[in-house]
Amino acid sequence: MSRSLVTLTTDFGTSDYYVAAMKAAMLSVNHNIRMVDITHEVKAQDLLGGAWILKHAAYLFPVGTVHLAVVDPGVGTDRRPVAFRHRGQYFVGPDNGMFALVTDNEEVEGVELRNLEFWRTSEPSSTFHGRDIFAPVAAHLASGVRLEELGPAISGLQVSHWAVPASDKHGIQGWVVHIDRFGNLMTNIPSELVRNFGPNEELRIYVGTHILRGLVPTYGSVSEGEPAALIGSSDTLEIAVNKGNAAELLGVYQGAAISVIRDKVAQ
Amino acid sequence: MSRSLVTLTTDFGTSDYYVAAMKAAMLSVNHNIRMVDITHEVKAQDLLGGAWILKHAAYLFPVGTVHLAVVDPGVGTDRRPVAFRHRGQYFVGPDNGMFALVTDNEEVEGVELRNLEFWRTSEPSSTFHGRDIFAPVAAHLASGVRLEELGPAISGLQVSHWAVPASDKHGIQGWVVHIDRFGNLMTNIPSELVRNFGPNEELRIYVGTHILRGLVPTYGSVSEGEPAALIGSSDTLEIAVNKGNAAELLGVYQGAAISVIRDKVAQ
Amino acid sequence: MSRSLVTLTTDFGTSDYYVAAMKAAMLSVNHNIRMVDITHEVKAQDLLGGAWILKHAAYLFPVGTVHLAVVDPGVGTDRRPVAFRHRGQYFVGPDNGMFALVTDNEEVEGVELRNLEFWRTSEPSSTFHGRDIFAPVAAHLASGVRLEELGPAISGLQVSHWAVPASDKHGIQGWVVHIDRFGNLMTNIPSELVRNFGPNEELRIYVGTHILRGLVPTYGSVSEGEPAALIGSSDTLEIAVNKGNAAELLGVYQGAAISVIRDKVAQ
Repeated sequence: MSRSLVTLTTDFGTSDYYVAAMKAAMLSVNHNIRMVDITHEVKAQDLLGGAWILKHAAYLFPVGTVHLAVVDPGVGTDRRPVAFRHRGQYFVGPDNGMFALVTDNEEVEGVELRNLEFWRTSEPSSTFHGRDIFAPVAAHLASGVRLEELGPAISGLQVSHWAVPASDKHGIQGWVVHIDRFGNLMTNIPSELVRNFGPNEELRIYVGTHILRGLVPTYGSVSEGEPAALIGSSDTLEIAVNKGNAAELLGVYQGAAISVIRDKVAQ
Repeated sequence: MSRSLVTLTTDFGTSDYYVAAMKAAMLSVNHNIRMVDITHEVKAQDLLGGAWILKHAAYLFPVGTVHLAVVDPGVGTDRRPVAFRHRGQYFVGPDNGMFALVTDNEEVEGVELRNLEFWRTSEPSSTFHGRDIFAPVAAHLASGVRLEELGPAISGLQVSHWAVPASDKHGIQGWVVHIDRFGNLMTNIPSELVRNFGPNEELRIYVGTHILRGLVPTYGSVSEGEPAALIGSSDTLEIAVNKGNAAELLGVYQGAAISVIRDKVAQ
Repeated sequence: MSRSLVTLTTDFGTSDYYVAAMKAAMLSVNHNIRMVDITHEVKAQDLLGGAWILKHAAYLFPVGTVHLAVVDPGVGTDRRPVAFRHRGQYFVGPDNGMFALVTDNEEVEGVELRNLEFWRTSEPSSTFHGRDIFAPVAAHLASGVRLEELGPAISGLQVSHWAVPASDKHGIQGWVVHIDRFGNLMTNIPSELVRNFGPNEELRIYVGTHILRGLVPTYGSVSEGEPAALIGSSDTLEIAVNKGNAAELLGVYQGAAISVIRDKVAQ
C-alpha cells in the first residue's frame, strides 16, 4: 500500500500555471504528498489519447497509488466528479468516458465526489475543478481518507463503446487510439487477440493503403524506411517504420481503422 | 511553515540542462529539498507572461514556500539579485520588474543578495546566475537561513507601471497579459473592478474588433465557436471561445488593450 | 553519498507514457526513490545533443547520484546495457557511444547488465528496455546495490571519435554539438583550449560565413542583433547573438565546424 503517491494526467500543458495550481492544492492538504507527472500534453480534450496513456502507465505503479486525471471537455456542465478503485489503483477525475476507456468498461468500486469537506472550497470555480475539487480529493485519498468518505457510491462509470475492438472469425476491427512522438501508431488491439487469430504467416494487417504481412519481432527486423507490424511495449498491436515516422509515411491519423484478416491462399 | 519546498519559474525550457543545473545546485545545498516546477515555458524574456503565471500559482502554495523565478533579460548587467517575503511567500530572483507585476507594486520585506557565502561560487558565471546565485540561495532560504542573512535590506522592488489597469467612471482600460495554450485571453482586470463597474446587462467589453455584451457564467453558456467574457479561475476578466481558440478567432495577442464601458441605451 | 537520487535523460518526450512507465518501474523497486528529470526533449536518437546535456548537468549533482540515460537508436539490437561509475557519479543505459561523449573517452569502472534479478522482468520488451531493464537497475543502484552485483565487469565503454576537438599550433577545430532554445551555439571546445591558444585580440573564430574577433565577457558586450563569441556557463566556447537567435542569424546547425585561428597581422 503506497497511499502517499499521486500521479497527474491532464491536457493542461506545462506552459501555464494550471498544473502548479493543482500541485499547490495537494501540498496544502498534505505537505508530504509525492507527485509524479504522467503527462500534461494530452491533446486538448482528447479522451481517447488521454485514456491510452493513463491505461498504459497507471497499472505499473505500486498498488494504492492515486491517479488524478483531468481531461475535461465538459467542465461547468453536469458530468459527475468521481473517485474509484480498479485493480488496486485509485482514480480521481470527471466521469466523461475517459475512465471507461482505461478500465475497458470493467466494474469498479466508485463514489461521486459530493462531500465538500474534502474540496479546496465549497464554491469551486466553474472552470477549474482540477484545482478546487479533484486535486484536493486526490491528496486526501492519498493521505488515508477512505473512498466511501468522499461521497455516495455509484453503480458504475459512464461506459464507452470505443473501449474494445470488434472481432469475429473473419477478422479483427480496431483503430489507432494514439500516435506517439516518433509517429508510431498505437492500436487498441491486444496482443492475445492477434496471436490467437491465426498463424503469423497468414496474418494480413490493413493500415491505410498498405497491407502488412504478419508481425515482426522488432523495428529493426525490416529495412530502414519500411513499415512493420509488431507487438509493442504496451502489449498491443503497433505499426512502426524503422527509423521513420509511420503516421506521416502511411498517412494515417488517430481514429483510423486497422483490420486484421487471414489470407490462407497467399504464401 | 513549509520551508523545504522550492518552486521554479523560468524561460529556460525543458529541452536543455539549465533547469537540471539549478536543481543540482539546490540538492547540493540540501539533499532533502523538495522542488515543484511551476513552468519553464515562459516565452523568452517575457516578464509580463512570467509574472502572470507566478502570481496565480505562488499564493496557492503553503505559507513559507520559496519561489525561485528567473526570467532575466538583463543577466550580466546591473539589475539587483534579490530575495523577499510577500503575503507569507518567499521569492528569489533578479529584480527586473517581474516581481512588481507579481506583487502589484505592494510593499515587501526584501534584501539584495550580496552574501557570497550562500552562493554556489564567489565567481559566478556571467550568463547563468540561476545556477550560481539564485538556486543555491533559494535552497538555503528553504533550509532555514533567514532573509536578513542573505544581504542588506532594500527599500523596495523595482516598480512596474504595467501592474494594474487604469479605470475611472467612464471605463476600465486593461490588457491581455497572457494567452493560455487553449487560446484563452487572460487580462489584468480583476473581477471586483468589473462587477462594481455596472450591472452586467450594461457592460460592453471591447476585444479587437469585437464587442461582447456582459459576462456569462461559463464557456458552455454560449454556442460552440462563439466568444464569451467571463470571470476565469484566476479571478480576472477572461475572453474565451466555446470549444475554440479566442486568440486566433479574434486576432488578439499579448499586450492588446481590453476596454470595458457601460451602454445604458442598448437593451 | 546520496544514493537515493536518480536523474532521467531521454528522447522520449513528455507527451507519452514512456517516462511515467520508467518512474513507475523505479518506484516499484523502491517506494522512496527520488527522481529529477534532466530532460526528455533530446531530439530523437541524437546521441551528440543528449551527451552534451547530460555531461553538463550530471557532475553538478551530489556525489553518488545515479543518472539514467536512454537515447537508444539500437534498441532491440546487440548494443550492451551497462552501468558505470565516473568521477563520483553513476550512469545506467545503453552503451551506444553517448556515454563516451559524456566521459570524454576517459576510463570508467563499469559492468554489463546481465543479472536478471534486478530487471523488471526476465523477458523484457524488445522495444522498451528503459522500463524493463534500465529504470529498475537504476533504482536498485540508487538503493544500495553494488555495481558488481549487476553483471560482469567490462573493459571499457564504446569509444566515440567525436568526443574531443582536434587542435595543433595552427588552430582548433571543433563543432557545434548543441543549439539551445534561444538559438545559442554550444561547441565542444573547452575554455582552457581557447585561452591557452593565444592572446584574445589575435583570436579569429570562424562560424559559418562569419569571422568573430576575440571573446567578449557577456552577451550584452555587443550591440543588439550582433553575434558574439564567449565562454558560456558550460565553460566551453559559445556563439550567441545579443537578444537574438544565433543559429538562425548565422545559418549554422548542429554538427557545423567551428575553427579558431590566430591572426597576428591584424589590429
